Amino acid sequence: MVSDSLPANGGHGKYSYSKNSYYQRSLANTVKNKIDEEISQKLDISKFCSTSNIIRIADLGCAAGPNTFVSVQNLIEAIVEKYHFLCPTSPLPEFQVFFNDQDTNDFNSLFITLPPDRKYFAAGVAGSFHYRLFPESSLHVVHTCYSLHWLSMLPKELNDKNSPAWNKGRIHYTSAPEEVHKAYSTQFAKDFENFLNARAKELVPGGIMVILMSGISKGFPYSEIPTGMMYDLLASSLMDMAREGLITEDRVDSFNLPFYAASPDEMAELVEQNRHFSIERMELTNPVPSLEGPIDIRAWIMHLRAATEGVFIKHFGREARDEIFERLIKKLSNYSELLNSRTNVKVQLFAVLKRK
Amino acid sequence: MVSDSLPANGGHGKYSYSKNSYYQRSLANTVKNKIDEEISQKLDISKFCSTSNIIRIADLGCAAGPNTFVSVQNLIEAIVEKYHFLCPTSPLPEFQVFFNDQDTNDFNSLFITLPPDRKYFAAGVAGSFHYRLFPESSLHVVHTCYSLHWLSMLPKELNDKNSPAWNKGRIHYTSAPEEVHKAYSTQFAKDFENFLNARAKELVPGGIMVILMSGISKGFPYSEIPTGMMYDLLASSLMDMAREGLITEDRVDSFNLPFYAASPDEMAELVEQNRHFSIERMELTNPVPSLEGPIDIRAWIMHLRAATEGVFIKHFGREARDEIFERLIKKLSNYSELLNSRTNVKVQLFAVLKRK
Repeated sequence: MVSDSLPANGGHGKYSYSKNSYYQRSLANTVKNKIDEEISQKLDISKFCSTSNIIRIADLGCAAGPNTFVSVQNLIEAIVEKYHFLCPTSPLPEFQVFFNDQDTNDFNSLFITLPPDRKYFAAGVAGSFHYRLFPESSLHVVHTCYSLHWLSMLPKELNDKNSPAWNKGRIHYTSAPEEVHKAYSTQFAKDFENFLNARAKELVPGGIMVILMSGISKGFPYSEIPTGMMYDLLASSLMDMAREGLITEDRVDSFNLPFYAASPDEMAELVEQNRHFSIERMELTNPVPSLEGPIDIRAWIMHLRAATEGVFIKHFGREARDEIFERLIKKLSNYSELLNSRTNVKVQLFAVLKRK
Repeated sequence: MVSDSLPANGGHGKYSYSKNSYYQRSLANTVKNKIDEEISQKLDISKFCSTSNIIRIADLGCAAGPNTFVSVQNLIEAIVEKYHFLCPTSPLPEFQVFFNDQDTNDFNSLFITLPPDRKYFAAGVAGSFHYRLFPESSLHVVHTCYSLHWLSMLPKELNDKNSPAWNKGRIHYTSAPEEVHKAYSTQFAKDFENFLNARAKELVPGGIMVILMSGISKGFPYSEIPTGMMYDLLASSLMDMAREGLITEDRVDSFNLPFYAASPDEMAELVEQNRHFSIERMELTNPVPSLEGPIDIRAWIMHLRAATEGVFIKHFGREARDEIFERLIKKLSNYSELLNSRTNVKVQLFAVLKRK
């Protein structure tokens, strides 16, 4: 299986995902109330109570923790509350939670840091969520947070000099010709279709899927939001390094981030084409109240590094990575005013789907 | 939770369990036919077919692989064969396999080496099998191979100078006073009771548990089988090192291997006291046909090292371990004739229990 999306940094060191993911956690917390609402209104628990006393939950793209533990805890609390309300005489169900990420994820760290007071049975599942991971009709709730925007592979044409989608001197579809964007969106559509088909098998009828990922309004230029600006400056840093002979221009040309932010309209269309799920909620959210105020550029790039460093090391080598991220921080500092003027653009997609 | 039993060495290096466990695999293979027989005769599959199309299997104490994959594959083949025979018109069930070991086990290595052509959904479960690991009535088959003989903790009296079970100058109950043996057997009984209670909750009625572990005939002195002789020589090597000032005598006195080999009679009594399981099979097996011929002492100690090195490092420090194992090999070489005369003693306990 070819995979261009590498897992987040493992362990608990300076650049680990576990130490550099409070931004993702904060974003996820903004939708806690909405998730509670959806579970309370849409999860068909009375049906589950009657057939089994086990509720199985999967968090797909869990990384090495700890955010996944918070999300799972929130989900379980919402379900327990609903149970108390709907089936007050039944004994509470037991919960089994499956933490999934790619097979190179640091599951050892995940297992060692599982909350000791957890009220669920935990399991780790290694593998790509673009394929089947669980038996048929064995899950009741699927959660995926900040993972679905990673493509399973980069579109080949980005590296094809004869294609109009050749992405020379850029590292993403931001500020790129329409053909580049099209190549990304086509790959995303394929990936998401595979994802939906796999989950359609695994979820019980009435099962709920909660999706949080990067998103954008239909037609809004990616280069006009902070992440897009950052990608442009990252490309420019890499080109500077190429000019200085630190890396080759060829390496820059052939580097692209396997990251795609879909619009709610695009997502809705793909879900409808797939036919297995009803859309219970599909919206963009932002800004994050706790992140109001100017962007802390160094902290932001530490987050980027924790989540994506593996991709950079794989392509540019272990030696170049410090230089890359330091140059990026410097360039971004020159644009802080512009960046801060764009922090109110909605860039988090929140969707709740229900298995028909 | 206090635990004195450390997991086997991870990774794939010279001293890894994955490279040094063919002895355990070979022993396990000797009972393959017996397991097939038990599955074929005792596993109540017709009941499972009617209620669900998922068969869930757990291997408890799986280490980092690869033996666990062979055992699981054998189990699944036996079940599929029975299915074909009993429910020829039903679609084959899907299998979900849970690989369990302590939370410090190297699950990363396990996940990366999962057989790519496996016909089951895999999950890892971290935690001690002396406690609950799975939801109620969620497993159909439990397998545990060369794990149950590890105690969850060492009996405290072994280190108590005022107790008749103080185990001075020894590292195990082999060649020790009866009180030491009694302290070990009491701890084993507690551990096994906890194990059975946890599994009784987790297995469906009619579910099968296959146990392979070190064993011994009732009343047979442990010092008269190769492993017991080896423990005596290991103690003697450590005492030599203490005399030479390389380690302190105190360290040797306070070191004990948390390993207990039960007899079939003892096991049967514990299972009957527990009342949740019927005994379908309980026997000692040996010798291993493929291991006939003289013992390869160095390979044997490499196996011991792969399975137990963590315990030695924890107690004597990382520096001492090479010296310990090298001295042991030297001493054993002087006794090879005696050792080889005892290889036909039955020391593998094979049990099949069925959840009532």
